[in-house]
Amino acid sequence: MPELRKDPVLGRWVIISTERGKRPTDFNPEPKGRKAKLCPFCPTNESSTPPEVYAVRHNGSGANSPGWTLRVIPNKFPALRIEGDLNREGEGIFDKMNGIGAHEVLVETPKHELDLVDLAPEDIKNVIIGYRERIVDLKKDPRFKYIMIFKNQGEAAGASLEHSHSQLIATPIVPKRVLEEIDGATQYYGYKERCIYCDIVKQEIHQNVRVIAQSEHFLSITPFASRFPFEAWILPKKHSPLFENITDDCAMSLGLILKEILTRQSRALSDPPYNFVIHSAPVENGAGKEYHWHIEIMPKLTKVAGFEWGTGFYINPTAPEDAARFLKEINID
Amino acid sequence: MPELRKDPVLGRWVIISTERGKRPTDFNPEPKGRKAKLCPFCPTNESSTPPEVYAVRHNGSGANSPGWTLRVIPNKFPALRIEGDLNREGEGIFDKMNGIGAHEVLVETPKHELDLVDLAPEDIKNVIIGYRERIVDLKKDPRFKYIMIFKNQGEAAGASLEHSHSQLIATPIVPKRVLEEIDGATQYYGYKERCIYCDIVKQEIHQNVRVIAQSEHFLSITPFASRFPFEAWILPKKHSPLFENITDDCAMSLGLILKEILTRQSRALSDPPYNFVIHSAPVENGAGKEYHWHIEIMPKLTKVAGFEWGTGFYINPTAPEDAARFLKEINID
Repeated sequence: MPELRKDPVLGRWVIISTERGKRPTDFNPEPKGRKAKLCPFCPTNESSTPPEVYAVRHNGSGANSPGWTLRVIPNKFPALRIEGDLNREGEGIFDKMNGIGAHEVLVETPKHELDLVDLAPEDIKNVIIGYRERIVDLKKDPRFKYIMIFKNQGEAAGASLEHSHSQLIATPIVPKRVLEEIDGATQYYGYKERCIYCDIVKQEIHQNVRVIAQSEHFLSITPFASRFPFEAWILPKKHSPLFENITDDCAMSLGLILKEILTRQSRALSDPPYNFVIHSAPVENGAGKEYHWHIEIMPKLTKVAGFEWGTGFYINPTAPEDAARFLKEINID
Repeated sequence: MPELRKDPVLGRWVIISTERGKRPTDFNPEPKGRKAKLCPFCPTNESSTPPEVYAVRHNGSGANSPGWTLRVIPNKFPALRIEGDLNREGEGIFDKMNGIGAHEVLVETPKHELDLVDLAPEDIKNVIIGYRERIVDLKKDPRFKYIMIFKNQGEAAGASLEHSHSQLIATPIVPKRVLEEIDGATQYYGYKERCIYCDIVKQEIHQNVRVIAQSEHFLSITPFASRFPFEAWILPKKHSPLFENITDDCAMSLGLILKEILTRQSRALSDPPYNFVIHSAPVENGAGKEYHWHIEIMPKLTKVAGFEWGTGFYINPTAPEDAARFLKEINID
């Protein structure tokens, strides 16, 4: 059973994944040039994953067989496990609990050679609806306090399998980083009685120096205090705390702008590895007026080093205004 | 002039290094197999760095000429600049200030082929005393609120030059990560009237499952909530808030245990890239009773990915107790 441990000074939780139990030699670089192994996410290999929990199928094909265009499965090596109770426990001054949670993989396409950016807008829309449906389903389990969707694209960004996929993780506590955002947004609301993200949307449209793209429903910017070069955010223009309330129409609109931003980054930066994370309000105390869901996309171009670990602040060698200009100038026809 | 920008929600500062002004093509992978360029940190190349601000010389050699065993120079491409005033400024809802600070490089040895771990204990002692002397000197400048020492070893850990070196950065604000530690330690002190790190030292020695090594003055452990596999901390056994108060004797003792831990990690993990950071109390409001300086050493074996960026918690595939046992069992004779 994985274990959640709390840093006694910072209150930061760590998942100690004891079952993976990596020994020193497990970290030695793998020999290169090996033949590719069977891909567990490709059609006809459905039996090498746990049974699917959601799929998009158009041809009446049966569960766990080929014929899907999108497939969600529990992670075979989950960071958190769905079985069991929380069991909070102390060990002297230290605190720990069982690693309860859910960890799922959303396979975005049956085609091994495609990345998310290559999919048709309609298929990206289905990916977004897949995220929504899994969140709505997992919210029924009262043990889960936060559900997060993220994507690691490329080995340097932490993807361990090449076949394009996103991940969902449901945690038994609201993560510190999420609480900090909620706290910051709530403080601003208390002071101004306005949502800070709504104010950011307004100011960015008005200043128009960090806008990459916009549509009726969404705005994409390089944020004012970007941590990473070419970092891009996508925010709904209209106030909305919970990603999972997205309508089918808005999912299409989000698919279009997400494809555009990924295409611009991909062409400007030669297919960079990247991470994206959907930031949404927690399951309970939804911070309805104060919080505003959004997506943060972070191309992996620089290395996090001692300075960042020690201070928690970041050195970004590309001004967000320059990044927005470069991205806007890319021809995507 | 670099610019410090504040994230309006999280209060996190980012250094926008506009002078480096990296364009998209600057991030393309470099062609491999090029000849090594002249190393600016090697003896006889002293003129390719800014003039030294500190050095250890035993043979009466003159400044900025060969004959040193340790040399401290301002960073040629500083993240923060020493000239100018702070100039805080708003831009609508956003806040920024000039990137004032100091950024220095401590070249640990004249020998290009050696790493810190290879140096004699006496030379590592001199590195530690070099850290101390530079902090003591820079503390005289009232613009600096925090001074941090860190080391990036290996390209994957963010080192841009191969020749073994550490870095010092002085910032005009106390970084968020440091404030969080001080806050956590102060809360604990308020509740218990004891230093939390003193309590950790006591419990770790008593439990003796995460101890890697100890000496009269220092304890080294894998922390209970280690973020990374084989992460190791070194703490003074006796309460002490400020690293820069270290005596020459204690610097020798620290050099010995630091060499031992780096040797154990290096042998267990085949010379991993790593970062270390000296955590010490801020210049003002020194948190004298509450805070306890220490070193955090983080081998770079896993990749920080979407989950970590989104939640601020970490997945560690090696239990700290296992890591301590593996490291202790390594033969270092």
